[in-house]
Parts: sequence; C-alpha cells; structure tokens
Amino acid sequence: MFKLYYYPNNASLAPHFLLHHVNADYELLLVDKKSNVQKSPDYLKLNPAGRIPTLVVDQQPIFESPAICMHICELFPDSGLMPHIGDPKRALFYQWLTFLNNTLQAELMVRYYPHRHTNDQATIPNIVAAQDDRIADALSIINDQLAYNQYLLGDQLSACDYFLFMLAEWSLPIETSPLAFEHLAFYLKRLCANSTIRAVCAIEEIDLSPFESYSPELNKEGVIVGT
Amino acid sequence: MFKLYYYPNNASLAPHFLLHHVNADYELLLVDKKSNVQKSPDYLKLNPAGRIPTLVVDQQPIFESPAICMHICELFPDSGLMPHIGDPKRALFYQWLTFLNNTLQAELMVRYYPHRHTNDQATIPNIVAAQDDRIADALSIINDQLAYNQYLLGDQLSACDYFLFMLAEWSLPIETSPLAFEHLAFYLKRLCANSTIRAVCAIEEIDLSPFESYSPELNKEGVIVGT
Ligand SMILES: N[C@@H](CCC(=O)N[C@@H](CS)C(=O)NCC(=O)O)C(=O)O
Ligand SMILES: N[C@@H](CCC(=O)N[C@@H](CS)C(=O)NCC(=O)O)C(=O)O
Repeated sequence: MFKLYYYPNNASLAPHFLLHHVNADYELLLVDKKSNVQKSPDYLKLNPAGRIPTLVVDQQPIFESPAICMHICELFPDSGLMPHIGDPKRALFYQWLTFLNNTLQAELMVRYYPHRHTNDQATIPNIVAAQDDRIADALSIINDQLAYNQYLLGDQLSACDYFLFMLAEWSLPIETSPLAFEHLAFYLKRLCANSTIRAVCAIEEIDLSPFESYSPELNKEGVIVGT
Repeated sequence: MFKLYYYPNNASLAPHFLLHHVNADYELLLVDKKSNVQKSPDYLKLNPAGRIPTLVVDQQPIFESPAICMHICELFPDSGLMPHIGDPKRALFYQWLTFLNNTLQAELMVRYYPHRHTNDQATIPNIVAAQDDRIADALSIINDQLAYNQYLLGDQLSACDYFLFMLAEWSLPIETSPLAFEHLAFYLKRLCANSTIRAVCAIEEIDLSPFESYSPELNKEGVIVGT
C-alpha cells in the first residue's frame, strides 16, 4: 500500500503518473500548501526538506520526486518504465531523469519562486527574465533529443517521459512555451493520448487542451513557420 | 575502459572518487574550462548540456554526475557503494543522492554563477546573500541526518558520501561553512582518512587541511560553543 502526499500539479504529479501506470494500490493525501502544511512539524518528520511530494511505502517515507519515481519503477520491474540493470539504456535513463530534475525542474523553481533567491524583492523581474532564457535552453536540449527519438530513451516509454510531461505542463506559461519547439510539441501532443496521463490529469484537474490543440503554422511549402 | 572528462574540483570529482574506489581502469581527460572547451562543438556532441563531467564507457557517453555515479555503482555491484535492488536502503540512496544534487549542488551553482540568473549584474549581491542562506538550510538538513548516522545511509559508506564530500568542499568559502555544523564537521573530518579521498584529492590538488584541522571550540563544560 502506497501513500502519496501530494498537491495537484506539483512535483507529486510524476510519481502519481507512475503509481497509476503500474496499477499500484495507492492513496492520495492532500498536503494543504495554501496553509503551508508542508512546513508543519508532522510533515517535516516525513520529509525534512518540507516539500511536496513524499511517498510512504510500508511505513518508510521517501522524498524527492525522482527518487520516488525510481523506487516505484524498481518495485514494478515488469512495468518497463525503467531499463533493467545491464540494459544499455539504463545509464541514459539516469542521465535524462537527472537532467530533467537538476536543470529544467531546478530552473523552473527559481522562475516560480524568485523571491527566495534574492534579498531585494525589487530584483525579481531581473531573475525572471534570466530564468525564462535558461528554461528555453533546457527545452531546446530536450527538443534536440526528441528529433530522432519517439520517447526520451528511444522507442519505449519510460518514467522519464512522465517526468518530462509534468515539467512541460509547468513550462506552458513561460515566455518560450514548450510548444514553440517542434519535436517536443508533437511528442507532448502524442503523450496526451496516453491513458495514464488522461486519467491522472482528470483527477488533478489539469487541462490538456493546450497540448492537444497544438497545430503548427505552416508556410506555403508546408514547412513549419519559424523552424 | 572508462574515460572521464574532468576539471579539478568540478562536478567530475564525485565520479573520480568512485572510479578510484572501485579500482576501475580509467583515464582522465582534462576539459580546459578556462578556454570554455565544454562549449566546443566536439564536446557538445558528447554532452549537449556543455558541462563537466562526461563519462565515456565503451564508446557510450553519459553526462550528469549523479547519473555517472549510479552507473559506475551498478557496473561494480560488489563495491557496496549502492544498496542492491530489494535492500530497504535502496530508496534512501536515491533520495539522498537526488537531494544533494537538486538542492545543495543546485543552490551552490546559483551562488557561484549568480550572473547567469539575472539580467542586471548590479543585483548579484542580492542573489549571493539569499543563496548563502539557502545553502546553510541544506547543510542543516544533512547535519540532522548525520546526528545518528555514521554515513548518510547509516553504518555503511556509499556513493552518496563521496558526492557529499565534493559538495562540502565547494561550500567551504560560503558564509556558513559546513564546518559550522557539528555532526557534518566530524563526519567530513572522518572522511579525510578515507584512502580514496586522500588519493584523488592529491591528484586534483585539493587541500584537505580545512577538514583535518577541524577542532570545535569547547566551553568550560566541554560542550561545543554555539550548539
Ligand atoms: N526536489 C523536490 C522539489 C519539490 C518541490 O519543490 N515541491 C514544491 C511544489 S512543486 C513545494 O513543495 N513547494 C512548497 C515549498 O517549497 O514550501 C522534488 O522534486 O521532490
Ligand atoms: N548537473 C551537472 C552540472 C555540472 C556542472 O555544473 N559543471 C560545472 C563545473 S562544476 C560546469 O561545467 N561549468 C561550466 C559551465 O557551466 O560552462 C552535473 O552534476 O554533472
């Protein structure tokens, strides 16, 4: 039995996708972020970093969304969501999950919580502007990887794709949207047909229509404008 | 045969510790950061993020230092540096390695490259001040974990400890040094006796004396001042 401490469309979303995909017996426990419950003494006992999510499996709490994802994958080895030890794709799985987490996710966090990274609130717009560029750089690296690959690791869906979908959703309001990157945009649109993504986004009330309605503007030669 | 693209005391240090610890057949290739070689077309083919390190194993390049560390651990399963699948410590390994990388390391990067996170260079001191506090918060969480544990995961050394040692070294010049945290300071001093840390720091010309010479100031009752 799994208990996922979550908040809709927070870093709990990727673990939620995985629990649903593997058909785990899980329970969702809302952490009321509006009342800062993630910093309450009881929650800090589970997760000393005071952030969402935390997963409790057989009494053991685990925090950090990528760690939770890898743990779920290894508890359900037949899910195919993480290449097995010895598979040449194993190292690439670690590489992309780590890159998504320490680069795209970390840059998004600075972008959305800029006031935490300065002691002068007047400087927030300067940080936001720089972060928008950094997020576009990270999305561009991912877009290149998707130019010749159906999924991040090649022809098979993995936990990395669920993780990326979460981060892409968060990136929609950023100056350069993930939908400005052709390969990434088609990939995200394709992922919207995934039954787990549909079901979990319905539960968390996440609107998929920006991805679904993606249709690039074509010039007279049928080439996407701006590429 | 392993090829580690490195620069002394950069994020290549943790993988270097591991290659040495497992007694791998490896070669070090210097990436001349002073000439920005990490952004050269040839290097970007190995590592599109243009950062150090990259590991090449049997022609396959892998980037992201935690990913490289996990891959080395799995190629040397008898090293004991990563709990095996099924070991209750496995999830904690993922948790702490991820936390170190996406929190302590990420905050250090903003602290040392603040100009990348603002479009107005006059605001750099505001960012640095905030980052110093955030780094201290992360070190404090780690210090608490070490209050009752000899190593991050308990009584056995793992790759997480090598990773933490690297980040602690980087943190020495920060306003609140890692040596200001009692449990962390004793742990770091103890790690300086580790033969791999000694050998690799000698190769990379990293001075261990700040850690070795740690001796807390005691009050009349023999209690550490400030704790
Ligand atoms: N590295 C963590 C970060 C989690 C994180 O930043 N969670 C956010 C919500 S998306 C949060 O808890 N924010 C509230 C806070 O920081 O107080 C992970 O991926 O699990
Ligand atoms: N997440 C990467 C970060 C690596 C990183 O930031 N490396 C630094 C050196 S410690 C670097 O390459 N800096 C040069 C640059 O960013 O141009 C990892 O852990 O491998």
